[in-house]
Amino acid sequence: MSYMKLIESMLAGQKRACAKLITAVENDPKEAEKIIREIHQYTGNAHIIGITGPPGAGKSTLTDKVVKALVNEGKRVGVIAIDPTSPYSGGSILGDRIRMQDLALNPNVFIRSMGTRGYLGGLSKYTKNALKILDAASYDYIIIETVGVGQSEVDIVKIADTIIMVMVPGLGDDIQSIKAGIMEIGDIFAVNKSDLFGADRTATEINMMLDLTMDMDRRPPVVKVVAVKNEGIGNLIKEIKDHMDYLKESGKFTERRKNNLKLEVVELIEEELRKIVISHTDKEERIDEEVIEILNKNKNIYEVRDEFLRALSS
Amino acid sequence: MSYMKLIESMLAGQKRACAKLITAVENDPKEAEKIIREIHQYTGNAHIIGITGPPGAGKSTLTDKVVKALVNEGKRVGVIAIDPTSPYSGGSILGDRIRMQDLALNPNVFIRSMGTRGYLGGLSKYTKNALKILDAASYDYIIIETVGVGQSEVDIVKIADTIIMVMVPGLGDDIQSIKAGIMEIGDIFAVNKSDLFGADRTATEINMMLDLTMDMDRRPPVVKVVAVKNEGIGNLIKEIKDHMDYLKESGKFTERRKNNLKLEVVELIEEELRKIVISHTDKEERIDEEVIEILNKNKNIYEVRDEFLRALSS
Repeated sequence: MSYMKLIESMLAGQKRACAKLITAVENDPKEAEKIIREIHQYTGNAHIIGITGPPGAGKSTLTDKVVKALVNEGKRVGVIAIDPTSPYSGGSILGDRIRMQDLALNPNVFIRSMGTRGYLGGLSKYTKNALKILDAASYDYIIIETVGVGQSEVDIVKIADTIIMVMVPGLGDDIQSIKAGIMEIGDIFAVNKSDLFGADRTATEINMMLDLTMDMDRRPPVVKVVAVKNEGIGNLIKEIKDHMDYLKESGKFTERRKNNLKLEVVELIEEELRKIVISHTDKEERIDEEVIEILNKNKNIYEVRDEFLRALSS
Repeated sequence: MSYMKLIESMLAGQKRACAKLITAVENDPKEAEKIIREIHQYTGNAHIIGITGPPGAGKSTLTDKVVKALVNEGKRVGVIAIDPTSPYSGGSILGDRIRMQDLALNPNVFIRSMGTRGYLGGLSKYTKNALKILDAASYDYIIIETVGVGQSEVDIVKIADTIIMVMVPGLGDDIQSIKAGIMEIGDIFAVNKSDLFGADRTATEINMMLDLTMDMDRRPPVVKVVAVKNEGIGNLIKEIKDHMDYLKESGKFTERRKNNLKLEVVELIEEELRKIVISHTDKEERIDEEVIEILNKNKNIYEVRDEFLRALSS
């Protein structure tokens, strides 16, 4: 099947065509490859924003307000919201999506919820492909909102130009251990619910840790917001744009995109190699037998690995 | 260098030898392979417990109390606490470890903090190898406490026999989206800080979602605890033991271990294949050039992948 007609409609700005293409890449990796090959030349222009942070930080509400502010400026905005796919989904996830429904009707906004195939899943290839379709469809901004746990949080760094780390006062003791690590990945820190007790302290703590950092080219800003009241969103939007200016002026924009692309290509190659390994192991049911040998302590894992590598190369 | 003497001392129960072996596997993958080959025959006996859950749930305090309870029964317990390695570490992480220092002096307890190489890092090979050393050293229980974000939470499922998912009242709105997914991975649910307002509701919600599950062989128990007050720990310990009984009686113990071992072997094979890919890409600096071709839209990612695969197989 040729997707040329759908792609033409998508490029002409039709949301329906965009949605159909995303469904196509979700359903079939072979078709996905065909589509992505065709649209590659139209990609690379959107500003990709990742919104992440611990559970309870109010990421969905903040995403909603950021989208509205950008749309009010006349921008076109795509949103990919990562939901864990689970038979138990419902409740507030659905609630968040319903809250966004007025936005979804806006011709300049495209919203898609994508699963992660379970709690532990990450941003799948499908997510990356959907992102490429929205990029080709000329959305000025594409926002990816993670679920804030598991692999999706790990993967967002490999995709986004600007990462907004949403923090919130009073997440308890081991928030320290999160803070300890997030300095590495946040381009902008948004302290949400900053009308709550402890917000100033949280902002101060983040600022202090940033001050301790000697080897930063750029000091990430800390922005206080109250998403439910739409407070501080203007400042946040300004910081998002300033970050892109910084990336472009410093040459880091191309550098980041190159690094991410490199990761993507290496992953694609590894995926094919993995298929080779799996086709060997499945066909011969050999790995199951070998695993029993390891459990029975007749062999160790390295012996089994080496046998397989010999088999693969012969 | 031969590790026979260290291994002998470790097998004889010397904590110092155990610590030295763990340091050796952390520092050098080649040495790690030698050590793991030697000790493989002594492994497979410990009950491996993963303690995970969102930030702020009080996982460290709970771990502390669980270890104390097991030690009071005369058990030997190893603890691997996953900390994000970061120049910004300190504060409460250190605090947690200090809290555990009285335990660390106990001859029947071995505690090791291991890094994840950054916020996004997972349980490294080193963690798995440290686990094997503690297993060979005849610790009855080995507890792995994750940091509750990022990859370490994803990886714990591939290692533990029993996963305790620590929940806590009042984590805010999108806790729902976590709950939606955790049903898949928790063997036991501990509602910590259950003296706080909302604890009953949290426990009820978890129970309701578990009731909705039709395809479970075993319904995971929900245990209310107050770790700081040492309340409910006895119940939790009972559930941990009941879970192991269930695993063994149902045959799922061997099944889980086989699946995990299979994953580990496939990962080892993939790691070697990855080395082949990287040695190609580094040597020729070709992938960097190709990435620029992709950015300039002269090629797409699939074309580059296919060229590399051809180069690898020729």
